[in-house]
Amino acid sequence: MNQIDNLSINTIRILSADAVQKAKSGHPGLPLGCASIAYELWARHMNHNPADPDWLNRDRFVLSAGHGSMLLYSLLYLYGYGNLTLEDLKEFRQLNSKTPGHPEYRHTVGVEATTGPLGAGMGMAVGMAIAEKHLASIFNKEGYPVIDHYTFALGGDGCMMEGISSEALSLAGTLGLSKLIVLYDSNNISIEGSTDLAFTEDVEMRMKAFGFQTLTVEDGNDIAAIGNAIEEAKADKERPSFIKIHTEIGYGCPNKQGKASAHGEPLGEDNVKALRENLQWPSQEPFYIPDEVYENYRTLRESLIQKTGKWGEMFEEYCIKYPEMKELIDVYFNSGNGKLLENNTEFWKRDEKPEATRNISGRLLNMMKDIIPNLIGGSADLAPSNKTYMEGMGDFSKENPAGRNIRFGVRELAMGAIGNGITLHGGLHSYVATFLVFSDYVKPMARLSSIMRIPATYVYSHDSIGVGEDGPTHEPIEQLAMLRAMPNMHVFRPCDAVETAAAWYSALTSKETPTTIVITRQNLAPMQGSSKDALKGGYILEDCEGVPDIILIATGSEVELAVEAGRILENKGRKVRVVSMPCMDIFEEQSEEYKEAILPKAVTRRVAIEALATFGWERYVGLEGKIVGMTSFGASGPYKELFEYFGITADEIVKAADSL
Amino acid sequence: MNQIDNLSINTIRILSADAVQKAKSGHPGLPLGCASIAYELWARHMNHNPADPDWLNRDRFVLSAGHGSMLLYSLLYLYGYGNLTLEDLKEFRQLNSKTPGHPEYRHTVGVEATTGPLGAGMGMAVGMAIAEKHLASIFNKEGYPVIDHYTFALGGDGCMMEGISSEALSLAGTLGLSKLIVLYDSNNISIEGSTDLAFTEDVEMRMKAFGFQTLTVEDGNDIAAIGNAIEEAKADKERPSFIKIHTEIGYGCPNKQGKASAHGEPLGEDNVKALRENLQWPSQEPFYIPDEVYENYRTLRESLIQKTGKWGEMFEEYCIKYPEMKELIDVYFNSGNGKLLENNTEFWKRDEKPEATRNISGRLLNMMKDIIPNLIGGSADLAPSNKTYMEGMGDFSKENPAGRNIRFGVRELAMGAIGNGITLHGGLHSYVATFLVFSDYVKPMARLSSIMRIPATYVYSHDSIGVGEDGPTHEPIEQLAMLRAMPNMHVFRPCDAVETAAAWYSALTSKETPTTIVITRQNLAPMQGSSKDALKGGYILEDCEGVPDIILIATGSEVELAVEAGRILENKGRKVRVVSMPCMDIFEEQSEEYKEAILPKAVTRRVAIEALATFGWERYVGLEGKIVGMTSFGASGPYKELFEYFGITADEIVKAADSL
Repeated sequence: MNQIDNLSINTIRILSADAVQKAKSGHPGLPLGCASIAYELWARHMNHNPADPDWLNRDRFVLSAGHGSMLLYSLLYLYGYGNLTLEDLKEFRQLNSKTPGHPEYRHTVGVEATTGPLGAGMGMAVGMAIAEKHLASIFNKEGYPVIDHYTFALGGDGCMMEGISSEALSLAGTLGLSKLIVLYDSNNISIEGSTDLAFTEDVEMRMKAFGFQTLTVEDGNDIAAIGNAIEEAKADKERPSFIKIHTEIGYGCPNKQGKASAHGEPLGEDNVKALRENLQWPSQEPFYIPDEVYENYRTLRESLIQKTGKWGEMFEEYCIKYPEMKELIDVYFNSGNGKLLENNTEFWKRDEKPEATRNISGRLLNMMKDIIPNLIGGSADLAPSNKTYMEGMGDFSKENPAGRNIRFGVRELAMGAIGNGITLHGGLHSYVATFLVFSDYVKPMARLSSIMRIPATYVYSHDSIGVGEDGPTHEPIEQLAMLRAMPNMHVFRPCDAVETAAAWYSALTSKETPTTIVITRQNLAPMQGSSKDALKGGYILEDCEGVPDIILIATGSEVELAVEAGRILENKGRKVRVVSMPCMDIFEEQSEEYKEAILPKAVTRRVAIEALATFGWERYVGLEGKIVGMTSFGASGPYKELFEYFGITADEIVKAADSL
Repeated sequence: MNQIDNLSINTIRILSADAVQKAKSGHPGLPLGCASIAYELWARHMNHNPADPDWLNRDRFVLSAGHGSMLLYSLLYLYGYGNLTLEDLKEFRQLNSKTPGHPEYRHTVGVEATTGPLGAGMGMAVGMAIAEKHLASIFNKEGYPVIDHYTFALGGDGCMMEGISSEALSLAGTLGLSKLIVLYDSNNISIEGSTDLAFTEDVEMRMKAFGFQTLTVEDGNDIAAIGNAIEEAKADKERPSFIKIHTEIGYGCPNKQGKASAHGEPLGEDNVKALRENLQWPSQEPFYIPDEVYENYRTLRESLIQKTGKWGEMFEEYCIKYPEMKELIDVYFNSGNGKLLENNTEFWKRDEKPEATRNISGRLLNMMKDIIPNLIGGSADLAPSNKTYMEGMGDFSKENPAGRNIRFGVRELAMGAIGNGITLHGGLHSYVATFLVFSDYVKPMARLSSIMRIPATYVYSHDSIGVGEDGPTHEPIEQLAMLRAMPNMHVFRPCDAVETAAAWYSALTSKETPTTIVITRQNLAPMQGSSKDALKGGYILEDCEGVPDIILIATGSEVELAVEAGRILENKGRKVRVVSMPCMDIFEEQSEEYKEAILPKAVTRRVAIEALATFGWERYVGLEGKIVGMTSFGASGPYKELFEYFGITADEIVKAADSL
């Protein structure tokens, strides 16, 4: 290795060790072990533009092993991304700094995805590679490969142990995502010690089984070998590639390298000193970087900027030659077409007869597919049940990358990550679907959508004991509470066609909040009182004259029960208001005045009705109200019988109201 | 195939098709496709005792593809398990029948595990195989292999697509669980159609990579080949085995076989008729079974009972020869020793100085390990952080099956399933551990513990923004609400040593409810008012004289803030009660009188404090109270700064109280 490469690589190590040491917290092991890999990749194989971090056609780099964040921050600083300064690195892991413990999307310029939960980055990278392949099929013209980039993911043993990587990479193999390149930091060390304790599988063989080209680099500091492997990976036009690179965790630090203790704690002052000496670093001063290193990165930066300049010229020509494509790119990447639905009367149409909200959702989706061309998504092998198939839009596959229906297979967790990756890539609006009960599997990735503030969309059908015969394993109970408790997630449970339209409209026009749409298996009667006010989260669906005696609050399939109970109570001379609450989260965002208008504090006789866990409904009924809902798991039986059996009926609502 | 085998196999098909048809709901595809496999296995290779379904040393059979429940119910009926009747089969999927949509543990005699969420059964089977291997190492004596059985799991493409199967089976390979035999119903069909859509990987190669012996049966109706493969699987004493069996979904039904439509809906009257004709069934009458079939199953049953009789004789001898082992078996399989902790003063000792509850938990665990010899468990590669290592008890491994620390690797979901499997096996009390934020991954399996009513134990450390520098991806927010919303789960968040002891005591003496123990990373001051009353879920930790003006309710690390705020408020002349609420779920189980004594309805000035999502706390503070907690994700920074930044401080509690 030549001197300047060596110095530039060691700079990453020194910066990482210093920052972790200063923070008295962090993970030096990976940055030390992977510095050469990342350097070689970013300097010689990855197309990126530090001056334009949002460049459409950049290669994506996902640090799936997010704890190694100092590796990424070092590179972003050295390449001059987003004015990241040395001061920022010194503020590593400090409150409100640009350099939090794990990389955070939208927080630090150049970070493509929030990572930390291991393996999640693998799934998101697969999503990015899907997005690239799809967009290329839409936009590229002969001689104008405007979308033509690689997606790189760097992960370690932990990433490979997590089930999500098997799910995601198996699908990547099936889909032949040849521009996905996974770099496997194989150091045989996990937190508890040697990977022999728990992980002796032949990872390369697994990846071969998934349909990957597999390559091996024996020495993680052999940048020529690393470079060759990356080029070989690029050369395979049929299969994604997996490069196993043997590294040593904590490389360069004599007392720490190869040991589990290098992973997640500062090396210690003495060991940082020893690292400097061992690497023959020219100074013992923390955060010292030789001038020639800065010079080298500056040169690399300039050459990258120049390269992307060529793309810019091509793109300009393309836009002139294909003005309609330029417009389409704007629709895909900027405006979206969600707003077009706002006044589409067909879209907002009330049903005339009872219909399951899953069927309504499916109908809306098949209306939206033409209006919103960048809508893409699918289900975890439940499309016929979730009603999430866009007819006539084809399946996304190796042979048909223009297809807009994604067949995720029975892989809910990876599906969530892939949806995130598609959204992160830019240019597409993703939706993913399964049964509500299996939102349990999706949840860790939905959480990442919420943290990253990306408008990924989740569709969950079979949304209560209305599932019926499939029984307790398939009947969601606590899932709505789980999703509602999550910050920055809009959870909709619509009661009819109008509210289902509101849910989709909200999802497709959201900029920084993911949306969950929860729909029924069984038919629901259309509600005469439903309206676009559903977009306010909660609203008055039916009202009495004057101040109500009782407020009934319900969502989804229970709204019709509330209305029915309201009629019975009215016949008894009670003044009843029925509030539909399709989205608690959005209702909470309304003004105090609005909330008071819907749920006046003075009215304390309140009953909430929802055929799922009662947990959380006290927010609206307080200590004095009642909740008609589930306090146990469900059961297997025809769904109407279940509603009776568990006492979720108009009569029980009336009883509850009478008891107040 | 001889006539009687053929008839006996077709009986399973006919019963399954008829039951699904009668229920107008269900999954005929698998029972038709796998009837031969299951028949051959149960008749000739599986040691089981229909007359004693709880027989200690039975081979375990887990139907991982739980939707194929009619396969299992048919067998249980034909073998005469638990008096299951033909009437029960006719009540398939009806409310309160013995034959719910998916097999439910504790509900139908002979069902070893509740299955339905795909792949979960693979994880539970791995747990059972671990339990067998561990118990064999403890109890077997030369010439007396009292624990010596196989664990069979039958799963389909869906099970293999789910990440949990990769996690669990990779670990099974590492651990060399040679008595685990996975039967893979490979029919190339999923709900959305051909598995080519989403699943073209080479499953056998993956399993080889995991360290399995792999075997193939080309024809799922060739019972000789199936039998040979099972025997080859048994013969491998080093590796678990994976038998890929090519089947046809819906086999026997001319219009349905090999099609996705055979999977999850009744075949239809005409097709059931055609099935009968095609199988040359002797009658068109639904649920008709020829006498010779009954006769055959009766003979098989008798011979199985006889075989287990031999084990019984050996076991009797063993008990005479090793009376101490007999006693130990009783401790392991019946009494448990949890009750011994009840009056152990060392166990209940109050700390004198501040200590993290994770350290306290670790200390207790290392006390309990000697008292409760059947305690076994571990962490998903976070033992040093979770403090869940039992010193001196060794690692469970291929070489050391007597080890009681399980190294799960970074595989939270499979860990949960394995914990379930260990518990289901009987004889052991399992615990599993990770960070609270990663309970998200464990959750689907924790849900199964709750549904199955088994006392599996979950330990989650790093339980709030107290995580600090690792930032939002590692800081739990909504996880407590998620876990509390789940029926039949006791969620403890102890505030000090006494409450941590209560949490563990509750976990180890629970019979039908799993327990979650949530512990801190950071030090907490010991509370003078803490007591065994923590076992009531909530209790008065500090009180004023007379009726309080204000009640402060807190859990875990926020109890000391509540106490501090209480002092400040008292100095202002307010009468304050501080309630510690380590377990909402158990508090809810108390009498109305007890609850009223702790939280009198008349006192409406209430503040709840918890450094996690506020969601759900309205249950105790109502519409008029306040909650000091998190309404956003956390951040990366030193934890003390985070508590200040997010306003979770004594001052903010005082402010909230003052505002009431």
